[in-house]
Amino acid sequence: MEKHVFDEKLAGLRNEIDDIDSQLVNLLKKRRTVTTKVGALKNEVGMPIYAPEREEALLTKRRQQAQEAGLNPDVIEDVLRRLMSDSYLSQDSSGYLCVNPDCKKIVVIGGKGQLGKIFVDLFTRSNYQVEIMEQEDWCNSETIFTNASVVIVAVPIRLTTTIIQRLNSLPDECILADVTSIKESPLYEMLKVHKGPVVGLHPMFGPDVASLVKQTVIACEGRQPDSYQWLLQQIEVWGAKIYPVDASAHDQAMAMVQVMRHFSTIAYGYHLMTEGADIAQLVEMSSPIYRLELIMVGRLFAQSPVLYSDIIFSNADNIHMMKRFAYRFLELLEDVEMGDKDSFIDMFNQVSDWFGDYAGEFLKESKSMLLKANELKK
Amino acid sequence: MEKHVFDEKLAGLRNEIDDIDSQLVNLLKKRRTVTTKVGALKNEVGMPIYAPEREEALLTKRRQQAQEAGLNPDVIEDVLRRLMSDSYLSQDSSGYLCVNPDCKKIVVIGGKGQLGKIFVDLFTRSNYQVEIMEQEDWCNSETIFTNASVVIVAVPIRLTTTIIQRLNSLPDECILADVTSIKESPLYEMLKVHKGPVVGLHPMFGPDVASLVKQTVIACEGRQPDSYQWLLQQIEVWGAKIYPVDASAHDQAMAMVQVMRHFSTIAYGYHLMTEGADIAQLVEMSSPIYRLELIMVGRLFAQSPVLYSDIIFSNADNIHMMKRFAYRFLELLEDVEMGDKDSFIDMFNQVSDWFGDYAGEFLKESKSMLLKANELKK
Repeated sequence: MEKHVFDEKLAGLRNEIDDIDSQLVNLLKKRRTVTTKVGALKNEVGMPIYAPEREEALLTKRRQQAQEAGLNPDVIEDVLRRLMSDSYLSQDSSGYLCVNPDCKKIVVIGGKGQLGKIFVDLFTRSNYQVEIMEQEDWCNSETIFTNASVVIVAVPIRLTTTIIQRLNSLPDECILADVTSIKESPLYEMLKVHKGPVVGLHPMFGPDVASLVKQTVIACEGRQPDSYQWLLQQIEVWGAKIYPVDASAHDQAMAMVQVMRHFSTIAYGYHLMTEGADIAQLVEMSSPIYRLELIMVGRLFAQSPVLYSDIIFSNADNIHMMKRFAYRFLELLEDVEMGDKDSFIDMFNQVSDWFGDYAGEFLKESKSMLLKANELKK
Repeated sequence: MEKHVFDEKLAGLRNEIDDIDSQLVNLLKKRRTVTTKVGALKNEVGMPIYAPEREEALLTKRRQQAQEAGLNPDVIEDVLRRLMSDSYLSQDSSGYLCVNPDCKKIVVIGGKGQLGKIFVDLFTRSNYQVEIMEQEDWCNSETIFTNASVVIVAVPIRLTTTIIQRLNSLPDECILADVTSIKESPLYEMLKVHKGPVVGLHPMFGPDVASLVKQTVIACEGRQPDSYQWLLQQIEVWGAKIYPVDASAHDQAMAMVQVMRHFSTIAYGYHLMTEGADIAQLVEMSSPIYRLELIMVGRLFAQSPVLYSDIIFSNADNIHMMKRFAYRFLELLEDVEMGDKDSFIDMFNQVSDWFGDYAGEFLKESKSMLLKANELKK
């Protein structure tokens, strides 16, 4: 084919695609207009934005239509999941139902911090009277706490105990809560310093979350749960799921996923550097899964070391648990050194059984993640 | 608002959304029809399917349009990336330009295996004459190799050396290549057994890859690169990028990313199990990033232990490197035990510097991954 003929044909087809994509944008605008109305409607009655059955039904219908049109139904599902995720945001923007209009004042200690300000924003948009308390406001604490119905401690983990210990004169009916990523110790301190309702929360999302839909907030019972139920319901109105768990079980689990994994990842980054690896070359040579592994490591190092070290250093029990990991690691290495493949495979199969159905489920989800990671490549 | 009024209004709005989504599917069908034509056109002249500048330009135009329409441009970008990823598939389906029509026969040893069959399929769709060789075909090897222009070794890693050592009577001009995930040893064996062109390849993608677009194939030079250039060009026609690297540098890098990470992840799964963690509870309590961490671990355990142990046990040098990791891990733990936060933070900052711009880049990419992981939650 002559070059100019090829160029003409290609340009023509690309113009067709541009036209279709332009119609796509217009269609997305129409969709968002309608989903915003859905949000406003739901908020009038305090109905949750995320409705799993509706999501299921919508996806099933469109997958079917795609299949019949000869398209890969996974594509339409992926596109719709992205649109639904965005629609939760637009449905969010109209404010929230106020679950407890009798609530007087909500004080967020550390309300200017990354996590604190999310709660300040959410309470405000739910029509509560919110007051932020920072270090310089402690001289006015008596006035600030006078009408407080809720006091939320949202300070850095290393300051949590100190701050809680100063809250010895809150109103009797005031709900005292924290959002620290450890729970046993803050809960103990809150129960000691305050006679009224107490609850320990752990929001399982980062400060860059766009909305609370499908997020989890862990709740550890302190005292008088009936008195703070409305607060949990308010969090559910915002879209999050409340997961009740015992404080001690929470801390153990967090040590396993949070502390262990952070520390291990930091150690791995340190290892790559001290081994003299060429990071650019590693990235160039990576398969999609290795790229994802490197992303999971590298992302930590774009963040604050203080945040991570605070978490890692927060609990001496963690050290013993992490030493156990190192010893197991060396123990498994011995199998490799002895060439004992059978033992290694045996161990692997035991862990597979322990993961149960999650292994297959996670493999499936990771494929979507890899597809996404590949799409993002330049 | 009375319930029936609410129900009516909600149903009405949902019907509007269903209608829009239905139009969306039709639009996607139109798009795919056009992209398939683009693929057929490009294949006629052997032009690569993935055109980075076109992808960029397309995204810029539509982001702008979205912005002007009051939409979040990230949404349209995510949707288009998904559609483009799928369009590469439809452009793929029409077959490929045959770079070397003078090529006589291509023999894929292990062509029924997971990776082997991908190459069999690609070569076939590029109009080459392909022959598969499995264990039972060795009695006919003389006949099979007679007209071979290319012989590709695609057998399990533990059989690679044995198989290569049997290839001592290939035609002089035949290209001998392998696709093993280690390179130094197979390359050495191939150069020893064969006098003609030799190249070591390592396809950096898994057997479940839908297309080779944006994937990487590592190429380690063996002998007479001019003679096998066309083979590398054919791989590029399929959409992959060729990354040339020295065999020894490759193996060291793979040890770091592949072996180290697999082993470490397996050890972590073993650790979770022996610590008596409750996997269901961990999953329920996970924040998006922890869920992603668990996905990266659990996914391994849905796969074959033989595959992973083959890789881990394949090179004794790995053991020393992994021991060094364990010792560094324990060394860092000592900082924690001594409460030496400053040293820990110091180390952290050094690794951040070492990651350079990649840290920020990876943080950004991980946010997209987390968004995706959240969309997939049920």
